[in-house]
Amino acid sequence: MSRVAYVNGQYLPFRAAGVHVEDRGFQFADGVYEVVYFHQGRLIDETGHLDRLERSLRELSIAEPMSRRALQAVMREIIRRNVIASGILYIQITRGVARRDHPFPVGVAPGVVMTVRRIKPTSAATVAAGVAVVSTPDIRWKRCDIKSVSLLPNVLMKQTAKQAGAYEAWMVDERGFVTEGASTNAWIVTADGELVTRETSSAILNGITRIALIALARQAGVRVVERPFTIAEAQAAKEAFLSSTTSYVLPVTRIDGHPVGDGKPGPLTLNLRQSYESTVVRGVAA
Amino acid sequence: MSRVAYVNGQYLPFRAAGVHVEDRGFQFADGVYEVVYFHQGRLIDETGHLDRLERSLRELSIAEPMSRRALQAVMREIIRRNVIASGILYIQITRGVARRDHPFPVGVAPGVVMTVRRIKPTSAATVAAGVAVVSTPDIRWKRCDIKSVSLLPNVLMKQTAKQAGAYEAWMVDERGFVTEGASTNAWIVTADGELVTRETSSAILNGITRIALIALARQAGVRVVERPFTIAEAQAAKEAFLSSTTSYVLPVTRIDGHPVGDGKPGPLTLNLRQSYESTVVRGVAA
Repeated sequence: MSRVAYVNGQYLPFRAAGVHVEDRGFQFADGVYEVVYFHQGRLIDETGHLDRLERSLRELSIAEPMSRRALQAVMREIIRRNVIASGILYIQITRGVARRDHPFPVGVAPGVVMTVRRIKPTSAATVAAGVAVVSTPDIRWKRCDIKSVSLLPNVLMKQTAKQAGAYEAWMVDERGFVTEGASTNAWIVTADGELVTRETSSAILNGITRIALIALARQAGVRVVERPFTIAEAQAAKEAFLSSTTSYVLPVTRIDGHPVGDGKPGPLTLNLRQSYESTVVRGVAA
Repeated sequence: MSRVAYVNGQYLPFRAAGVHVEDRGFQFADGVYEVVYFHQGRLIDETGHLDRLERSLRELSIAEPMSRRALQAVMREIIRRNVIASGILYIQITRGVARRDHPFPVGVAPGVVMTVRRIKPTSAATVAAGVAVVSTPDIRWKRCDIKSVSLLPNVLMKQTAKQAGAYEAWMVDERGFVTEGASTNAWIVTADGELVTRETSSAILNGITRIALIALARQAGVRVVERPFTIAEAQAAKEAFLSSTTSYVLPVTRIDGHPVGDGKPGPLTLNLRQSYESTVVRGVAA
């Protein structure tokens, strides 16, 4: 089967899936997106992703292009047409097509694009070894709570990580505290066994996997503290990991070349990964 | 004649001018742009715009899609095909089309889009009355010196201005100093007759019109000082104005509802506008 994309009401061959050059997503980064993982046809954390998508639209005063129910129908149809059981669904909504001018155009319908594709699950070897992260100044704008396509700084940070041989960049704010990764949330486990991740604010995106992990950890009796931490604290922590829709929970074993703990993935990290996979991804009670 | 757009090597009817949904300009704001004014077929400050375009590409490690000479040939051809004597040329270059993943893709050709259109010159009435600006916190990223399409904050600021009945928003940094407008540079004239505009740094875009105005003012014997100023200083200034490729020099007569000077466009502002129009736009010695 060849890939199919959904673009503004039409199901198109992927190669032919285009938007107009005056789509405000292209000219102004004036749009939002979500990446939803689906497993054996089931959309993971669908409600969380749709809630966040609608919040992003509200924050930018972009109208909802259709009802949630209609959007969900398209989500299912695009997965069905691509004949993929497990993979990721990408949804992008922009303010629509209008003659280039900064203010919001009047009477313009939002644009909707959806694509799906298979992804390779993180290999057991990667989970067993953990990944490296590097720190970098957080140069982003002040509304990182909105999941907008204004991702150029994230692209630059991810490239910095790649060039340093790392998996992710942990961004550090002006006070010296980690905000989050370029496309993941950042976590540590303290010597006391507390699970720490930065509190939500306009400085970070409230990850859907982040929310699920906080709930899972609390259910398991782990003390979760939402507060900022520094790179030095993370390097000296017992464990560290990152989380995202596509990577779930990934052990961080090196930060700026410095081993975390004994340099191996920690037990709480691996337990959380397993719980997340079991309960959320596979829909099985842990 | 119907409008024509240039997209990746093809001259297309404007309505059919599209980019792929996986163009990184659409998904990541991973691209740069320029807006060049042309008057009776002559591109104004062409070298300045192309220098800045190439600098933006270099800062983002996006390859030049073609030589400057080839780009200039397309610029002329797209103007010619649209049969417009005076208007604006929009050039956007993105990192190209690739499967969605943050780091720079390897072996991908940059994308190039060009469009042209007529613009209405600022009316004599607007110049005579001046325009209002409102202040707003500068929430943008820390590389505003790069003319990227990551313009969502600028869109929001311009909308804030529009809703307040103003022409432009002057953005204020954390120390209380004006950086620039959402799509223009900001200027004041002090009681001593000094012309003040913020110095170049990663906090502002170095406007091509800004550069031309500094040169023109100095030629006319005006003392030009590049330093930050506050909203309070601007409100108490003798004159204020904004500058851009499309507005040239536009008197600012109200800031956050407060009249600037006597509430009318100032003489230095109007002289600079006239000099700019004569020498730069019309190519006539002042």
